[in-house]
Amino acid sequence: MSFTFKLINHDNNARAGEFNTPHGIIQTPAFAPVGTQATVKTLTPDQLESTRANLILANTYHLFLRPGPDLIAEMGGLHHFMQWHKPILTDSGGFQVFSLAKMRKVDQDGVTFRSHIDGSQQRLTPEIAVQIQEKLGADIIMAFDECASPYDESYNLQAMQRTHAWAIRCKNAKTRDDQALFGIVQGGIFPELRKQSAEFISSIELPGYAIGGLSVGETKTEMYHMLEIVNQILPNQKPRYLMGVGTPEDIIHGVQRGVDIFDCVLATRLARHSAAMTNRGRLNLMNSKFSRDPKPIEEGCSCYTCQTFSRAYIRHLIMAKETLSGTLLSIHNIHMLQVLMRNIRQSILENRFDEFSNSYLSNYEYKPGVSADKILST
Amino acid sequence: MSFTFKLINHDNNARAGEFNTPHGIIQTPAFAPVGTQATVKTLTPDQLESTRANLILANTYHLFLRPGPDLIAEMGGLHHFMQWHKPILTDSGGFQVFSLAKMRKVDQDGVTFRSHIDGSQQRLTPEIAVQIQEKLGADIIMAFDECASPYDESYNLQAMQRTHAWAIRCKNAKTRDDQALFGIVQGGIFPELRKQSAEFISSIELPGYAIGGLSVGETKTEMYHMLEIVNQILPNQKPRYLMGVGTPEDIIHGVQRGVDIFDCVLATRLARHSAAMTNRGRLNLMNSKFSRDPKPIEEGCSCYTCQTFSRAYIRHLIMAKETLSGTLLSIHNIHMLQVLMRNIRQSILENRFDEFSNSYLSNYEYKPGVSADKILST
Repeated sequence: MSFTFKLINHDNNARAGEFNTPHGIIQTPAFAPVGTQATVKTLTPDQLESTRANLILANTYHLFLRPGPDLIAEMGGLHHFMQWHKPILTDSGGFQVFSLAKMRKVDQDGVTFRSHIDGSQQRLTPEIAVQIQEKLGADIIMAFDECASPYDESYNLQAMQRTHAWAIRCKNAKTRDDQALFGIVQGGIFPELRKQSAEFISSIELPGYAIGGLSVGETKTEMYHMLEIVNQILPNQKPRYLMGVGTPEDIIHGVQRGVDIFDCVLATRLARHSAAMTNRGRLNLMNSKFSRDPKPIEEGCSCYTCQTFSRAYIRHLIMAKETLSGTLLSIHNIHMLQVLMRNIRQSILENRFDEFSNSYLSNYEYKPGVSADKILST
Repeated sequence: MSFTFKLINHDNNARAGEFNTPHGIIQTPAFAPVGTQATVKTLTPDQLESTRANLILANTYHLFLRPGPDLIAEMGGLHHFMQWHKPILTDSGGFQVFSLAKMRKVDQDGVTFRSHIDGSQQRLTPEIAVQIQEKLGADIIMAFDECASPYDESYNLQAMQRTHAWAIRCKNAKTRDDQALFGIVQGGIFPELRKQSAEFISSIELPGYAIGGLSVGETKTEMYHMLEIVNQILPNQKPRYLMGVGTPEDIIHGVQRGVDIFDCVLATRLARHSAAMTNRGRLNLMNSKFSRDPKPIEEGCSCYTCQTFSRAYIRHLIMAKETLSGTLLSIHNIHMLQVLMRNIRQSILENRFDEFSNSYLSNYEYKPGVSADKILST
């Protein structure tokens, strides 16, 4: 299986491409909704497909702890288990070990930690992370990395060096040839570290490269600057994946700087917190001004939710604590991002990405009151 | 609009019929899933339709308190608000006032109570209950009644007398001719009261009659006995609706005694408590024996859930506290009951209902460990 990445067009640094996987072609730029526990929360695969999502992400850390990779392998792998027949990407577990697990202890060989579910002691190493991901069977798997807090330079240096050593060990541990292993660039907000990391990681021959350790507390200016540094170094002919980023404005700024793939829990997490993503900014549908509003979430939107229900009905579901509100908002939010990705792609193919992005961002109201960080931490 | 009920066949006391409503024909015997707050919990209308449910029930008490009948009327009525374009039945609010509301005080004219949501003082009378239901706009609306605890004879006498007087007031209060008002028989577990009530209520010319105050704590033997008494008196040419009953065994015993319509929260409530209804009895999918079970919930079932997912996956969702498990189990449980209703109907049309029901019940294991009463009270 060759994971060919075909660059179809670029418009300045923005790229339109196609990445071949065993479960179909991913047209890039692409946004992957997150299905942490082998389900994109509140959605059936049918509903998820109706959003025209293609690639989805599942979390190795969560699936490792529950139900366990052996069980999923026995059930035919992740695609069969969750009945998603399009491409899947699994992360390495690294990010969650450093954000969710209790009492973690990192050494050169790996990380020992306690499960956030039952407190049991667990260990992940590069080899174990690859082995788990081979059992899960996603199309794209990630090297085991250490994501450090972005502002501590000396710790970022150590974490980056571990990440580099672990990337090589992951490549060596890999046995399946129907999975694409992506390496991950780290380095916090430090240009010199990011440069070193991009150079080191891209020196390992891999079918794709990811940029980790961003959208974890740094400013947007810092994030965009790191993307510029890293993407100048990552090879043109391979896909670039910016991990954990998924607001419309960040996606546009990422594409502008050469990113091809994004993922984020934001779309579904906002949905469960009553917020709709629109091309004009966010709407908090709990607001009483929507109580008698017969309009759809977003005029002109072709998603099932907007084609079927009023804001008034969705607000009622929220007030009545009916989980259907999370389902309907998740459908809309994911669909909205998929339409955005297609529009971005089309504008790149037609060499008018700057025009598209300027026009989009001038109509888009960023509401700091509902910041991604705030909602992502709940 | 005439709400004609056509009796197509009867097999002893079991009946197959068709009830005409403005939103389509209800083929009877019929089971109505419950959409308390203008949503059958965890399901989109599309998913609900995939179960082949036809009639659904919504609760006047809940919708009266939130979002309020005026808002729903302004949004085009309940069908448009919740986007269910098939028949809807609303109850009168009486049952919930007597089971959910706080500090209720009943008088001859109606009931004053405090909302279980915000403690606000509210009042329902027969006239108000009809007015609310006219604003909601369901196809079938119910007379305002008092459902008493089943074993207190003197109180049941009073409650029955109030229910009778209120039924007449409801009929007089009604102004819309595109809604069918059903009267409700009460009387606890007292044969003489049930007889009196069935005679009185059926003396009011109405398009259908309901049997209330059952499945509220009495034994199954008592319930079946009351059905026999009441259905001997209710007119043959009108539909009979047994309120709040929806286990397979009770549905079969009800049809056997001449009931045409059933509703119950059980199918969806069990679903949210990890239990699947099958034609062999209930399965608690949280049981670890299902953790690696690749089979569908029920072999041969044609619902989306069984056609798509393994027991192992559904158990994983339950253990991981993913609400999708409730969605998938609700789809199965409602679908399973719809298939049962069609099979019952077919057997009546072919004059083999007794054979069907004997065979069904001999394969059906009633598990008292997961009793309806226990789950209905949670």
